[in-house]
Amino acid sequence: MSRIDGRTPQQLRPVTIERGWSKHAEGSVLVSFGDTKVLCNASVTEGVPRWRKGSGEGWVTAEYAMLPRATNTRGDRESVKGRIGGRTHEISRLIGRSLRAVIDYKELGENTVVLDCDVLQADGGTRTAAITGAYVALADAIAWAQTKKLIRASRKPLTGTVSAVSVGIVGGDPLLDLRYEEDVRADTDMNVVCTGDGRFVEVQGTAEAEPFARDELNTLLDLAAAGCTELAGLQRAALDTALER
Amino acid sequence: MSRIDGRTPQQLRPVTIERGWSKHAEGSVLVSFGDTKVLCNASVTEGVPRWRKGSGEGWVTAEYAMLPRATNTRGDRESVKGRIGGRTHEISRLIGRSLRAVIDYKELGENTVVLDCDVLQADGGTRTAAITGAYVALADAIAWAQTKKLIRASRKPLTGTVSAVSVGIVGGDPLLDLRYEEDVRADTDMNVVCTGDGRFVEVQGTAEAEPFARDELNTLLDLAAAGCTELAGLQRAALDTALER
Amino acid sequence: MSRIDGRTPQQLRPVTIERGWSKHAEGSVLVSFGDTKVLCNASVTEGVPRWRKGSGEGWVTAEYAMLPRATNTRGDRESVKGRIGGRTHEISRLIGRSLRAVIDYKELGENTVVLDCDVLQADGGTRTAAITGAYVALADAIAWAQTKKLIRASRKPLTGTVSAVSVGIVGGDPLLDLRYEEDVRADTDMNVVCTGDGRFVEVQGTAEAEPFARDELNTLLDLAAAGCTELAGLQRAALDTALER
Amino acid sequence: MSRIDGRTPQQLRPVTIERGWSKHAEGSVLVSFGDTKVLCNASVTEGVPRWRKGSGEGWVTAEYAMLPRATNTRGDRESVKGRIGGRTHEISRLIGRSLRAVIDYKELGENTVVLDCDVLQADGGTRTAAITGAYVALADAIAWAQTKKLIRASRKPLTGTVSAVSVGIVGGDPLLDLRYEEDVRADTDMNVVCTGDGRFVEVQGTAEAEPFARDELNTLLDLAAAGCTELAGLQRAALDTALER
Amino acid sequence: MSRIDGRTPQQLRPVTIERGWSKHAEGSVLVSFGDTKVLCNASVTEGVPRWRKGSGEGWVTAEYAMLPRATNTRGDRESVKGRIGGRTHEISRLIGRSLRAVIDYKELGENTVVLDCDVLQADGGTRTAAITGAYVALADAIAWAQTKKLIRASRKPLTGTVSAVSVGIVGGDPLLDLRYEEDVRADTDMNVVCTGDGRFVEVQGTAEAEPFARDELNTLLDLAAAGCTELAGLQRAALDTALER
Amino acid sequence: MSRIDGRTPQQLRPVTIERGWSKHAEGSVLVSFGDTKVLCNASVTEGVPRWRKGSGEGWVTAEYAMLPRATNTRGDRESVKGRIGGRTHEISRLIGRSLRAVIDYKELGENTVVLDCDVLQADGGTRTAAITGAYVALADAIAWAQTKKLIRASRKPLTGTVSAVSVGIVGGDPLLDLRYEEDVRADTDMNVVCTGDGRFVEVQGTAEAEPFARDELNTLLDLAAAGCTELAGLQRAALDTALER
Repeated sequence: MSRIDGRTPQQLRPVTIERGWSKHAEGSVLVSFGDTKVLCNASVTEGVPRWRKGSGEGWVTAEYAMLPRATNTRGDRESVKGRIGGRTHEISRLIGRSLRAVIDYKELGENTVVLDCDVLQADGGTRTAAITGAYVALADAIAWAQTKKLIRASRKPLTGTVSAVSVGIVGGDPLLDLRYEEDVRADTDMNVVCTGDGRFVEVQGTAEAEPFARDELNTLLDLAAAGCTELAGLQRAALDTALER
Repeated sequence: MSRIDGRTPQQLRPVTIERGWSKHAEGSVLVSFGDTKVLCNASVTEGVPRWRKGSGEGWVTAEYAMLPRATNTRGDRESVKGRIGGRTHEISRLIGRSLRAVIDYKELGENTVVLDCDVLQADGGTRTAAITGAYVALADAIAWAQTKKLIRASRKPLTGTVSAVSVGIVGGDPLLDLRYEEDVRADTDMNVVCTGDGRFVEVQGTAEAEPFARDELNTLLDLAAAGCTELAGLQRAALDTALER
Repeated sequence: MSRIDGRTPQQLRPVTIERGWSKHAEGSVLVSFGDTKVLCNASVTEGVPRWRKGSGEGWVTAEYAMLPRATNTRGDRESVKGRIGGRTHEISRLIGRSLRAVIDYKELGENTVVLDCDVLQADGGTRTAAITGAYVALADAIAWAQTKKLIRASRKPLTGTVSAVSVGIVGGDPLLDLRYEEDVRADTDMNVVCTGDGRFVEVQGTAEAEPFARDELNTLLDLAAAGCTELAGLQRAALDTALER
Repeated sequence: MSRIDGRTPQQLRPVTIERGWSKHAEGSVLVSFGDTKVLCNASVTEGVPRWRKGSGEGWVTAEYAMLPRATNTRGDRESVKGRIGGRTHEISRLIGRSLRAVIDYKELGENTVVLDCDVLQADGGTRTAAITGAYVALADAIAWAQTKKLIRASRKPLTGTVSAVSVGIVGGDPLLDLRYEEDVRADTDMNVVCTGDGRFVEVQGTAEAEPFARDELNTLLDLAAAGCTELAGLQRAALDTALER
Repeated sequence: MSRIDGRTPQQLRPVTIERGWSKHAEGSVLVSFGDTKVLCNASVTEGVPRWRKGSGEGWVTAEYAMLPRATNTRGDRESVKGRIGGRTHEISRLIGRSLRAVIDYKELGENTVVLDCDVLQADGGTRTAAITGAYVALADAIAWAQTKKLIRASRKPLTGTVSAVSVGIVGGDPLLDLRYEEDVRADTDMNVVCTGDGRFVEVQGTAEAEPFARDELNTLLDLAAAGCTELAGLQRAALDTALER
Repeated sequence: MSRIDGRTPQQLRPVTIERGWSKHAEGSVLVSFGDTKVLCNASVTEGVPRWRKGSGEGWVTAEYAMLPRATNTRGDRESVKGRIGGRTHEISRLIGRSLRAVIDYKELGENTVVLDCDVLQADGGTRTAAITGAYVALADAIAWAQTKKLIRASRKPLTGTVSAVSVGIVGGDPLLDLRYEEDVRADTDMNVVCTGDGRFVEVQGTAEAEPFARDELNTLLDLAAAGCTELAGLQRAALDTALER
């Protein structure tokens, strides 16, 4: 069996992580997982939401959206419909939780980072690409805040790294990093978010067609953990180079 | 160690499943997991949404909501705010997917079942109680539709049963069926949806405080699978008695 | 002539008033007028809306809503539609005004009570059941606030009691407390809110088919006044027993 | 005792009914009750809403609104707020019901008349002025539709006339047709809608400060009935002159 | 060639400017350009929006709207649709910018003037009539504020006058102040806002059918400038008489 | 005097027009005017909006939006706010009108093209870059539709080309193609849309600080016309190369 793009079952698509994409954002990453392209902009502001004021702790949140023609057929804009759809809400919340898992709020101080993840082109795995790219944008934004003395240089707001990948069972085969065409044919679809040290932040498995057994779950988790480890390496490599501003 | 209500770690709260609660709905179940009470009403209508017309296949969907004072402090109504929150969206989608996992659309024919799950009183586990109760309401609604000849008696729209339970690691201990006070103290929180034959429909694990390791995940899955099996027994028992209409 | 459920024209349906229904609300009443069931939760908060701050006076307000399948055919959720319908607005305002008619704002002090009246099952007379039940929930909430010293024990925020009932002319006959099937056939429909001492708080009469003459109005008012008196007795009886919290 | 504008208790303010105010509407009336000015435009369209199609019956509905600076302090526009307030909803519904009370749907045929009542300047009694003016606009619109053969000349869609007035108890005195300053000081406030033959279409009495007794209600109904009769005469006089188009 | 109403190409429709139309607004003008009638109410409040507080400078803004039956066929209310249309937004912004062009914010002090321009009847040129009338309402409102000592009498918040007119090329002919029937037939349509000393505040030219050449643009600008000068004279004349309040 | 980026007053910023940017859209252009980057996606669908059905004519429309962090400080998403702002509406309408000016609806046939112009990074002139890029995307989309036989190859839906540029008077100097920092300091700001043959489609001049005189307007129009001509050349050059799909 070979995949539509010739990959092996446990192979990621080509991944690129382009830092400093936008000149305005404190952290700005254009991440691509194959044809999936997500622009992840991190905005830092001093202060925190009202319910957190005076706590000495910071906050990190995320918003996910798709351009109307990121997909094969045009979708109506949520701004025009006047309401955010359930899928958008669900993914925005997932991204926010995933990034907060590696944040030490005390070390961040009363600062807020908003991660805007806008899908410019979609081909499956937009939420996992978004998390993977947003982590890098977040790291750049925190470094910027330390340069600007919003956060003292000795502080360590990041407690680790975080990346994410999708896995699924397609035609009986467990596959890593599904493209859109694979995703729609998957019996089971799972999104896994891991820290760089191999622990889990989120595991979301869904039976699309058939309920799945414990051993299938185990196979998918193995596949995902390996994929996340590989992505963590790519994140590290991307962050290793100096960023000109 | 003992839990706030004296349960063992692997013990469910007292569960009641009261069928025929409302006289109007085709299936109507008031389910309680301890102090969590959810009214699950199933409404059957002939026909399907526009995008499914002519397919010969049916549709099942769900909406979840909370009464404003279901919780300890009053929440604003989403109807008054004019928008549905992300949490509501996320849970409504989860319930819908969980029930569709045991539906054979062809056997259902071009009929739609809407499951309304309204939380009357909340004490943790509202989404898992909702799924568990909604399955029973769905079964009653389908039986009604077969009585009324909307679906032929020989058809089998349900391919299995589905139930759900929450598990979490609280103070280092893996616990089944968390109450609200346990839930807020959990390091890891997981909602698991299983079929009656022990397979998984949804696995949603979230690191609330600390990322979790693979063996913790395994312990939680064991705990959840046993809880779901017990709930499946309670569903069967509830459905075994005749329902007066 | 006999009514569909065998009542005499001047007979109420069986009324039950169950206090302490929800464990969270400061006052919580499940009221039923026959098959009409409304959950009335009273929430007490210290402080008042901005426009009333510093006045030394409290505030009481109400919100009415129906579960989607409270009625014979499912209605769309107002939260999903993104807007509150005219009928909902109208009834919420009526309930609020009715309860405020027996409140002494000075005695209440700068506290707010919100009454949430959610119709779990509808069979006519939902607004009158809501007012009748909400009064009892309000009384319990105020008693709670006095126990908690939010309001001094010597204060008397309630100046009286309030109850409500519908009346109408159906097929030429004046009837008390209409069920849904009677309501849709009524020529004239009137909702009357009275204090326990027999005075009027609201009189809302509507010609559904034919304009009505003064003597018909008088007959309906007599009928309603007697019904309200009976309901006031039931409220007193319900409040006479001690409420365990 | 004398009223702020020197009227006797049972005296209406000066009422003007100016027909043909707008060149576009099929019926267009600028009605004034003293300083309260409401523009009532009736729009006729062939056809009826979807739920009424094929019934052979027509429909009449109304929308009420206020210009932002119709009142003493500017109110935010409901279009800007993105939602219609409860008061607007309540009054729109009242106007619609009042006019439908004198419509024979069969005689109207499958035509719809929408009454837009926009308050240009408010000084109390805007809803009663709106009903009184809208009736005249409706009569003109129906006459227009008969001229244009949308409705056959032999048909009688109007079964009577309808007018409305407010009454209230202010400082112990029952007063007819309250101005804004009287309205805010009223203990009881009542809006009464009558047909030209002296029967009631709507009676809406509200205790603003003190509950009211049966004899107070009777006094107010007498006052209102006399006021409506006088208004019916003014409507007839206005309609007696030919309308140039 | 003659125009539908017999005007010459460079002739305005009859213009009336009626001050003091509403008793509530600090400035209130009913302006008509032929059958186009716009009620322009200016509301003065002490203080400025939050983003301007402490600046010592004032603010002027505008809202434009149409009554549903201002036009030949009834339009749905934006309040009922729950959103403001693009055309409304565009015109509200244009009116606000035009009036701010003659305001000295320092001289105005921390006061806000809101101009509500509500089209009661439309026949082309509603935005230009609105600007022309709103200027007069603004002048009256500022005079009122000076009388009431909100603004010191020695201040000069107005730096000039502003008026507006539409021009267009219809059937090859450049015409001033288009009626609706001319407007829909125009190849090019331009709205021009001028100060009383003949300079431009806004020039908005749109090719409706055919792109337009530079000399056509010049002809239209000449026509518009002359029209604005004439309107400035009418504004001056209107303001020359004393306003009774 | 020299500009912040060293350009001469009549010099455009570096312009790039990258075709085929997204794999999904029928026409997809990433246009940049210096640091302003706009992704212009053209989506073709068979059929037209309801109000145009059966006319044999097509339709072209546009939607403009900004990513939240396209600008120097983050803006709230319009989808989250639940409403589209006035500026967005105004620009979407401008882009739509500009493109429709070079469309022959008959030749387009009953097809619809939607242009989505999403600003990825903003530095002044986003609307003019959007129009300039959208024209190229539109041309590619129409060519695609002709390849796919949605439009016959012999048809000529495009009657010309269209491009746009901003001009303004900054510190007394007329400048072409303003960057953001120039734009905020401009006394007068003008957006001009021209066809390739030098005629005007839209002229929108606004006095930001001081009203402008006729000769200033003329200078700005000269500057803009030259800029548009230059842009038309760049569009032609971009379209001259073959587009791989």
